[in-house]
Amino acid sequence: MFFPTDNRPVILTGDRTTGPLHLGHYTGSLKSRVALQHSHEQFLLLADTQALTDNAHDPQKVQRNVLEVATDYLAVGIDPALTTICVQSALPALAELTLLYLNFVTVSRLERNPTIKTEIQLRGFERDVPAGFLCYPVAQAADITAFKATVVPVGEDQAPLIELTNEIVRRLNRQIGRDVLVEATAMVPAIGRLPGVDGKAKMSKSQGNAIPLSASSDEIRDAVRRMYTDPDHLRVSDPGKVEGNVVFTYLDAFCEDRQFVEELKERYRRGGLGDVTLKRHLEDVLQALLAPIRERRALYAAEPDYVMEVLREGARKARERTEATLAELRSALGLFSLT
Amino acid sequence: MFFPTDNRPVILTGDRTTGPLHLGHYTGSLKSRVALQHSHEQFLLLADTQALTDNAHDPQKVQRNVLEVATDYLAVGIDPALTTICVQSALPALAELTLLYLNFVTVSRLERNPTIKTEIQLRGFERDVPAGFLCYPVAQAADITAFKATVVPVGEDQAPLIELTNEIVRRLNRQIGRDVLVEATAMVPAIGRLPGVDGKAKMSKSQGNAIPLSASSDEIRDAVRRMYTDPDHLRVSDPGKVEGNVVFTYLDAFCEDRQFVEELKERYRRGGLGDVTLKRHLEDVLQALLAPIRERRALYAAEPDYVMEVLREGARKARERTEATLAELRSALGLFSLT
Repeated sequence: MFFPTDNRPVILTGDRTTGPLHLGHYTGSLKSRVALQHSHEQFLLLADTQALTDNAHDPQKVQRNVLEVATDYLAVGIDPALTTICVQSALPALAELTLLYLNFVTVSRLERNPTIKTEIQLRGFERDVPAGFLCYPVAQAADITAFKATVVPVGEDQAPLIELTNEIVRRLNRQIGRDVLVEATAMVPAIGRLPGVDGKAKMSKSQGNAIPLSASSDEIRDAVRRMYTDPDHLRVSDPGKVEGNVVFTYLDAFCEDRQFVEELKERYRRGGLGDVTLKRHLEDVLQALLAPIRERRALYAAEPDYVMEVLREGARKARERTEATLAELRSALGLFSLT
Repeated sequence: MFFPTDNRPVILTGDRTTGPLHLGHYTGSLKSRVALQHSHEQFLLLADTQALTDNAHDPQKVQRNVLEVATDYLAVGIDPALTTICVQSALPALAELTLLYLNFVTVSRLERNPTIKTEIQLRGFERDVPAGFLCYPVAQAADITAFKATVVPVGEDQAPLIELTNEIVRRLNRQIGRDVLVEATAMVPAIGRLPGVDGKAKMSKSQGNAIPLSASSDEIRDAVRRMYTDPDHLRVSDPGKVEGNVVFTYLDAFCEDRQFVEELKERYRRGGLGDVTLKRHLEDVLQALLAPIRERRALYAAEPDYVMEVLREGARKARERTEATLAELRSALGLFSLT
């Protein structure tokens, strides 16, 4: 399974292991990762250490979901021969780099980070922010730079995290006098975030408005049935609104036949297309998309030993890479080495 | 060189590697470490990672002093067969434990720590406190608990650091439901801090008022000559003050012949004992103390390969211990493992 370091751009991305992945992850990242693994050297990080920064009270949840998310990756078509899938906690060099970088960032700089400010509010931490949570952007900088990633897919609200990473990179390179670390570019997805089936801005398992990748055929049907449409579209013959109508947002996201979707939109706007019919079209699309993913997922879920082996091999490759960066950086800074 | 884990109490102590050690270290810690290595299982940490938390701009200084301090240890009689001497940066489990513990401590708890508040003022950091500096007490908790140390020698101003360590220990043990980590007791030295030769409260290389362990015979003589005595003791026949007189403080600290020192004090108070004669007595004591240390130091300094081998062997033992604790804790918390 070894493949040599090549000249392709390096991508680092991944997921916090707090729950199985859902359709929002599919459109937001998984689909493009499956494509990018052919053109990029891709590392996928199962971010269990980061997940602990706001789940320290429930480590079992974080632990359980490492295999769940890995299984999701394989189910959607991430190929371990093309993409290195690795568990964050299996890479001690990331922790060592984090501690090192913490010395190059001030507390007030971390507190000013807009992403963190918002997230602290969202989580209701107020004065009781865990120190690990305040510091997680530095840990993320360690992740990105350890792999020398040049491309980092992020949500648009996370661009400040890449900015902080690049500040650390520049600060260290300046002190060293040459470019040991590389700056990264944020890759913001063209497609916006997929709303929940209830129309809320974000699909999330904890909100109960998500369709997991493992959803059964019945669960898909039920989710589409209770999907938010146009509340004023009462009779089939009434004209309906397409904007903010979750069914159309999903059709835009998942239906390959663009012309068919445009025709549906026109009919819906004009009146004469009922929600039941409309939803049946979406259901067909989602059933067709998710059936093979669900089947592959069941196969991998039945072979945890294989998935563990993928993670062990991924850890081996990722350890090699991250430890090489750590050693190179420590040596360039003139830090102590026993060798 | 292997010795089995025994039932002796475990001591963890060490030094930040920011400069060679001096007489202040000798009375404050080194002397008792040499004694304690026979009754305790002792780990000495060369704290290069911690030294970086306020020396990130000068990593070479931190690096250079790893070997200097290790050489000091051997010179004063630390026996690597009895004491494990290990470099902090060679123990990745310490960084991993630090990141883990940061999730169990709030930012405001760290900011309230009296030791840190004082140190932040001393260093003039104000708003620009490096995040690593704010977090170093958590790293210290990682050090202490990784070795399962029950005894930690500290200055009296550092007692709050042990309190924070024990808070983390209790918090984790409570969450786990049994005592995986052990609480530590601060061991505050009976002898107060040795003042500088200029009479300032603290002997410190950066203040230029220190006598390093490697001091030559001439350097010792010069240092004693410029030592602060009683500024009102102008003539030999004048009565002199013993309190605050650095020469007497040093005689109290280093002269084994208590009766002789008491006689000198009496003569000095009464009048009739000149500073030159008094200082000659102290010089004799310090020359006798430092000559064998200087000689042994020169021998070890000429054998850096041997010192490095001591550090490699220490790292091997310390890695075994700290990684065992990390694995035990991760498993007890229910965290993910590839094995």
